Amino acid sequence: MNLEHYLMRRRQRIDRFLERCVPPAAETDTLGAAMHYSLFAGGKRLRPILAVAATEALDGETTTVLPFACALELIHTYSLIHDDLPSMDDDDLRRGKPANHRVFGEGMAILAGDALLTEAFHVMAEAAARPGVKQRRALQVLTEVAAASGVRGMVGGQVADLKAEHTAIDLPTVEWIHIRKTGALIRAAVRAGALLAGARPDQLHRLTRYGECLGLAFQIADDILDAEGAPEVTGKRRGRDQARHKATFPAVLGLSAAKERASDLVATALEELQPFKRQAEPLREIARFAIGRACSP
Amino acid sequence: MNLEHYLMRRRQRIDRFLERCVPPAAETDTLGAAMHYSLFAGGKRLRPILAVAATEALDGETTTVLPFACALELIHTYSLIHDDLPSMDDDDLRRGKPANHRVFGEGMAILAGDALLTEAFHVMAEAAARPGVKQRRALQVLTEVAAASGVRGMVGGQVADLKAEHTAIDLPTVEWIHIRKTGALIRAAVRAGALLAGARPDQLHRLTRYGECLGLAFQIADDILDAEGAPEVTGKRRGRDQARHKATFPAVLGLSAAKERASDLVATALEELQPFKRQAEPLREIARFAIGRACSP
Repeated sequence: MNLEHYLMRRRQRIDRFLERCVPPAAETDTLGAAMHYSLFAGGKRLRPILAVAATEALDGETTTVLPFACALELIHTYSLIHDDLPSMDDDDLRRGKPANHRVFGEGMAILAGDALLTEAFHVMAEAAARPGVKQRRALQVLTEVAAASGVRGMVGGQVADLKAEHTAIDLPTVEWIHIRKTGALIRAAVRAGALLAGARPDQLHRLTRYGECLGLAFQIADDILDAEGAPEVTGKRRGRDQARHKATFPAVLGLSAAKERASDLVATALEELQPFKRQAEPLREIARFAIGRACSP
Repeated sequence: MNLEHYLMRRRQRIDRFLERCVPPAAETDTLGAAMHYSLFAGGKRLRPILAVAATEALDGETTTVLPFACALELIHTYSLIHDDLPSMDDDDLRRGKPANHRVFGEGMAILAGDALLTEAFHVMAEAAARPGVKQRRALQVLTEVAAASGVRGMVGGQVADLKAEHTAIDLPTVEWIHIRKTGALIRAAVRAGALLAGARPDQLHRLTRYGECLGLAFQIADDILDAEGAPEVTGKRRGRDQARHKATFPAVLGLSAAKERASDLVATALEELQPFKRQAEPLREIARFAIGRACSP
């Protein structure tokens, strides 16, 4: 299969839906402009694509999963805006563009994040009530996405990440942080697609494991790119993590062992997909792609 | 009826539920401590009590509404934490105690707010899936609460409020802001209780109007208290709004016309309750109480 073509087509469909959730803003609407700015600042749409691809792997209805998939991108975008704030990671650049608060100011960036997070749940709740959608499944997805985003998931991970700066870190701590900070939402994305497609328990279990391994591999690849990627590719200054003594896999394992770890995780993710047929090919290709950026020979 | 006794009993039940959502934190858990600090900093629990009282007015099941009612308090608390931040209203005091960011730092205050907002939707989604709960009603409540909290509601109102500082303001602008910034969530609270109790369309319409009038009256009373209330009572320095040229009713109408406006709104709210029986007595008393604090002769 042609992964690039696949990703482009899915991205177009996702972007069309996101444009309806957060339309381009009128000139006087600063909040709308701030939300739109970060939502359309060049994100790869990895989380929504994973949700759609997981549904496809089970021959499910992609129209049903689309709003939930896009809600994940709204949540991801809010988290990036808040993470970049001066009182958090203090990043001026995101994907090669000025961070949200550098354009709209801190107060507006906080509110744009708040509004995107709230909109995510609005989109999901509305979608769950639509005719033809199995409400019990949709509510399970809503519950899991909230759990993955909050104190037990992404926000909890971000807190631990900030605390770990400038302190001695070990491998279990780095894993603990990454599983929550990025892993939880990626896992939730794959499970959302699987649950809405009516996955059997064994299928759900395998896809969950796939999501967990991919999430961790993806974060390790990100850490590696931060350490050695060209700023033209990453859209950030190189070595930001190291300069701030961030808890990263390369920092505790070294670069080459970190790459090995990412490859092992992707291998496990692919094993979990083994019983799935050709429809799971996008999930397989995404897993290879996720670390390819960082671990290419 | 004894309103004080009623409010105390409802508050106890709400606080017990909130303690389960956000338990007292272990010593190392700064995020949990920051969430707990603001959630139990002396809030009146107006929004959850309104939701419960609206259900009671229709002889509904209060066990069903309780999680949704408490979710509203989680959302209200997050909004106060974010509003107080230096990049927003820059308030050091909230209910007579140091604002969240003064105790835990800005980054942690932002994350505590994010986590409370996310937890609100987690609580509602879980509650909606419980056996015996009508999922269609619960999803409508979820959708409405999200709409009232986001860009079309509370966050939109806060943005307009920040923009209105230091600019010439008129009555329609102040109303526009207040209807969104505080009115929307109070309206949603009453509607949540009504919807979950299975209100008929005419009942829902009347209770909605009650909520709209009460929400606006409540905000006017708050503005009046800011202007002339004793700091021991309000927990804030007096005249903060005026010092910052905030868009308030007393600023555009004068104090005495603002009080009259609040009384008129409460009268309308009470009229809407006319067809309801004795079970709506708490809603009536709350409406009188809401402005009594500010407009007592």
